[in-house]
Amino acid sequence: MLTLYRNARLCTLDGAYGWGLIDEGALLAEGDMLRWVGPESELPSDVVAARTHDLGGDLVTPGLVDCHTHLVYGGQRADEFEQRLNGASYEDIARTGGGIRATVRATRAASDAELLAATRERTRTLMHAGVTTVEIKSGYGLSLEHEARCLRAARKVGQELPLTVRTTCLSAHTLPPEFEGRADDYIDAVCTWLPQLKAEGLVDAVDAFCERIAFTPAQTGRVFDAARALGLPVKLHAEQLSDQGGAALAARYGALSCDHLEYLDPQGIAAMARAGSVAVLLPGAFYFLRETRLPPVAALREAGVPIALATDHNPGSSPTLNPLLMLNMACTLFRLTPEEALRGFTVNGARALGLHDRGQLAAQQRADFVAWPLHHPNELSYWLGSNPACRVFIGGQEV
Amino acid sequence: MLTLYRNARLCTLDGAYGWGLIDEGALLAEGDMLRWVGPESELPSDVVAARTHDLGGDLVTPGLVDCHTHLVYGGQRADEFEQRLNGASYEDIARTGGGIRATVRATRAASDAELLAATRERTRTLMHAGVTTVEIKSGYGLSLEHEARCLRAARKVGQELPLTVRTTCLSAHTLPPEFEGRADDYIDAVCTWLPQLKAEGLVDAVDAFCERIAFTPAQTGRVFDAARALGLPVKLHAEQLSDQGGAALAARYGALSCDHLEYLDPQGIAAMARAGSVAVLLPGAFYFLRETRLPPVAALREAGVPIALATDHNPGSSPTLNPLLMLNMACTLFRLTPEEALRGFTVNGARALGLHDRGQLAAQQRADFVAWPLHHPNELSYWLGSNPACRVFIGGQEV
Ligand SMILES: [Zn+2]
Ligand SMILES: [Zn+2]
Repeated sequence: MLTLYRNARLCTLDGAYGWGLIDEGALLAEGDMLRWVGPESELPSDVVAARTHDLGGDLVTPGLVDCHTHLVYGGQRADEFEQRLNGASYEDIARTGGGIRATVRATRAASDAELLAATRERTRTLMHAGVTTVEIKSGYGLSLEHEARCLRAARKVGQELPLTVRTTCLSAHTLPPEFEGRADDYIDAVCTWLPQLKAEGLVDAVDAFCERIAFTPAQTGRVFDAARALGLPVKLHAEQLSDQGGAALAARYGALSCDHLEYLDPQGIAAMARAGSVAVLLPGAFYFLRETRLPPVAALREAGVPIALATDHNPGSSPTLNPLLMLNMACTLFRLTPEEALRGFTVNGARALGLHDRGQLAAQQRADFVAWPLHHPNELSYWLGSNPACRVFIGGQEV
Repeated sequence: MLTLYRNARLCTLDGAYGWGLIDEGALLAEGDMLRWVGPESELPSDVVAARTHDLGGDLVTPGLVDCHTHLVYGGQRADEFEQRLNGASYEDIARTGGGIRATVRATRAASDAELLAATRERTRTLMHAGVTTVEIKSGYGLSLEHEARCLRAARKVGQELPLTVRTTCLSAHTLPPEFEGRADDYIDAVCTWLPQLKAEGLVDAVDAFCERIAFTPAQTGRVFDAARALGLPVKLHAEQLSDQGGAALAARYGALSCDHLEYLDPQGIAAMARAGSVAVLLPGAFYFLRETRLPPVAALREAGVPIALATDHNPGSSPTLNPLLMLNMACTLFRLTPEEALRGFTVNGARALGLHDRGQLAAQQRADFVAWPLHHPNELSYWLGSNPACRVFIGGQEV
């Protein structure tokens, strides 16, 4: 059964460059897949669509792909935000039980129903802002029981809502208090959890935080070995606060993506280019943490490393559910072009999840698209902090 | 006739310090004014309200006051934003007719109906984001005819929508092309327009842009003399890109506010403190223009100068209609506390407009308030880029 979506200004992002604008364009879908995309005047004359949607002349882009989020957690950290601005240091916050450990405590204390409700609400907000595929990481449970609860909440949201949810196990996020001083023991434990979590169908990819304040490259490598043994793809929080050589390490494991990357060096870039890993830049965290070291955008471009963007939604360093604000911040702070920014939140975001069936408007891509009350796709980056009332279609169905 | 609003968590901002939180609070309004504010349990027993609204336990704050906007203009500048990110310099943009002059051209070319519709739509977006009082400047017309058209559009929006609109004549914004090389002649002209614009009831205050790229302190002083002769209060775009001594000049005219202020020096601060002028900080423009020089927040605090915030909505340097993003940027970039940020967008915003009947929840203040689906007012600053679904009450009426 064919469905025709007509009277749209299409921004297809088809091909490697350019917006791919088609005025007076149309989309033809069969089930949840696009079968034909082009100017309405060139629609094959033998097409008989069972249903027709008039998109009212709106700008239509591929659905947004948010490829890096931490949407499952209990509590929030607005009090800590306020304390810091009233002069409390990171040490003060940590001493009073704040910081990431406060989120771990609140996550463990939350019931399954509370975790699910909070995750569903955040995911729904993203979806209504144009996100049709979202990655959700664990990483605030930090025990087999609680990591499983978090991943189950993410999976459940993917079943309840029409958008695609990809789950990532980030148990190697930070050291839980019960393993204080025993990071290697914790990594051993994580490696024993992975087969169980995978067996329950909870893990699409494995991630770790390789940083002075988190895990070493050697510990990261052990997590990746465990992932590889299970046939799971890996990703890495790499080079956010210092250069640990994490990206090069991840590239040796054929990582789908390396994320953050402010301190990425030329060897890391070369390794990512060889491995085909996507660079996921996270301007929300850069902004919120008042970082000043910029990711090496020009060198990534030069090396042909695809650049993706994401919200990195989390309560500590990027409490945002506004994808278009991330486009603006990628342009304003990182000097991406508006086209690079939109590619980063669509086709390259999909690549960072290993998905090749979405991110562009073209035949054989999913019928995931968004109709915006705008004239040109550069406005998605330009209007600072806007949340335009968009219509979101996932698998051809309006949500 | 009394109306009771109950079951709210009030953030009154009453008094000079503190959130003024009242759990299980209530508001009592008579017409458009608050008559009583306090814990519901202390509501005088003889009160007989004709109507009762249950606010569902929401957080209730004073209505937001956006005290500095340029909402009336034709066109937008997303193309220029894209060109700049693709490497075009300011000179390239200017040579191809871009920049502020493009907005002047588009504003002059727009019909009255188009200007009104665009201004109404932007104002409505702000109102639904919690703004109950907004200042709107002219400044893209730059001739008597077109400045009048812009101010009429602003005035009309204030009649059509329930929120309060205060108009500011900013004819001394930039030099129009027909006065190229004749800035003093242009200032002469502006001084002759003011009486006519005032006579038509279009001007609540007079503003100017005192800067190397705009008008000199001497020219600014002449505009202020004309305003003073008409009994109109003044404001100034001052010390944004360099220290021109504009704030001290404006203070000598008893300015309601000096705005931007990144380059404000100690003499300027002292002059503002003596004059009781409000410092209006504009983090959206600071962010969008990638400025690095911070306004002297600590010194302003020290001197007791009230600090206000605003969107500075305009197509060139702050294309935002998101007041809560401005709260976050004021905290993140300027290190205001969340309480200072909210006071800046409520009570101190009102003071920057010379309004003393709004900005706090207290008896004898207007019944302008917003019910937010949040727990604590620090969340207004914390959630980056959010537009929570709030209910807005203006003069006691839900909009
Ligand atoms: Zn992350
Ligand atoms: Zn301004």
